[in-house]
Amino acid sequence: MAHVRKVVWRLSAAAGAAGAFYRLQTLTPTVRTFSGSHPLSQNVPETLWNLGRLNHVAIAVPDLNMAKSFYKNMLGAQVSEVVPVPEHGVSVVFVELGNTKLELLHPLGNQSPIEGFLKKNKTGGMHHICIEVDDIEAAVTDLKEKKIRILSEEAKIGAHGKPVIFLHPKDCGGVLVELEQA
Amino acid sequence: MAHVRKVVWRLSAAAGAAGAFYRLQTLTPTVRTFSGSHPLSQNVPETLWNLGRLNHVAIAVPDLNMAKSFYKNMLGAQVSEVVPVPEHGVSVVFVELGNTKLELLHPLGNQSPIEGFLKKNKTGGMHHICIEVDDIEAAVTDLKEKKIRILSEEAKIGAHGKPVIFLHPKDCGGVLVELEQA
Repeated sequence: MAHVRKVVWRLSAAAGAAGAFYRLQTLTPTVRTFSGSHPLSQNVPETLWNLGRLNHVAIAVPDLNMAKSFYKNMLGAQVSEVVPVPEHGVSVVFVELGNTKLELLHPLGNQSPIEGFLKKNKTGGMHHICIEVDDIEAAVTDLKEKKIRILSEEAKIGAHGKPVIFLHPKDCGGVLVELEQA
Repeated sequence: MAHVRKVVWRLSAAAGAAGAFYRLQTLTPTVRTFSGSHPLSQNVPETLWNLGRLNHVAIAVPDLNMAKSFYKNMLGAQVSEVVPVPEHGVSVVFVELGNTKLELLHPLGNQSPIEGFLKKNKTGGMHHICIEVDDIEAAVTDLKEKKIRILSEEAKIGAHGKPVIFLHPKDCGGVLVELEQA
């Protein structure tokens, strides 16, 4: 029943879509089906890929120990030790929130991808959100067809050891969006 | 057992805390206990309040329909219709991610709290994160004692009809943090 409700919801949402969506408006919503054989899915496109849960919110911070201490001592959150991830140019503290986590990032090495962000945002700030997907390769193909700019030619192994892509913030309402293979 | 593990984890985390935390360093971590009678909690402070799940990530957008269409048509997310919340000066679209949600915000009326943010961030961007707490009044008292600046004298009813407070971004590593009564 959950499956049927989801498909019906998407069809009615698509039917109710309104207005001036600029270049987005000509595109058809992707109908999600978790099995290809459901009767409701026979006349609509097959599943390409599915968006999943929010994996984390990444926050760039100028002082990792101070940020860690804020979440631990002020808010009482469970926080990890500092984890160096040299291959991605960051040191990370994970803040566990139960349903998802925050990742506090600080530059590591000379060519950190967050160095420029911290120069512009000296007190730190939210850097990106990471959402899981069930098929990163299908997402890459689909988003390229939809003219969403991806910051690499193909998926690369991210900080969690899984393939990821980053979408251009100007195509995502000002937000840097990371998609990660679940 | 989960309770015991949590307390032990916090004590060892506190014991392992290191270094120059500026003014944060003089504060003792709050030990969380879900019952006041557990033997391990007899010699440590009682629970004041507990941080819970990430309720939402709020994203301010210059064009609500375009942002809604991006999440629906490009990423295949479940999105709500546009919900006007005039008492908080915003129109909102909820993007459901399963474990949490994004809230796309656009100014409504003449004195919207996100008007200034969008003037500085014309393409939009992440505005705040909202984390649930089990006792907002205890959180207000505790955070005031810890000299974390709260943007109102006391908790106010937020956009979900529940009491909320906002913490000063400069006390939170550059991030505007909302705490909401669960």
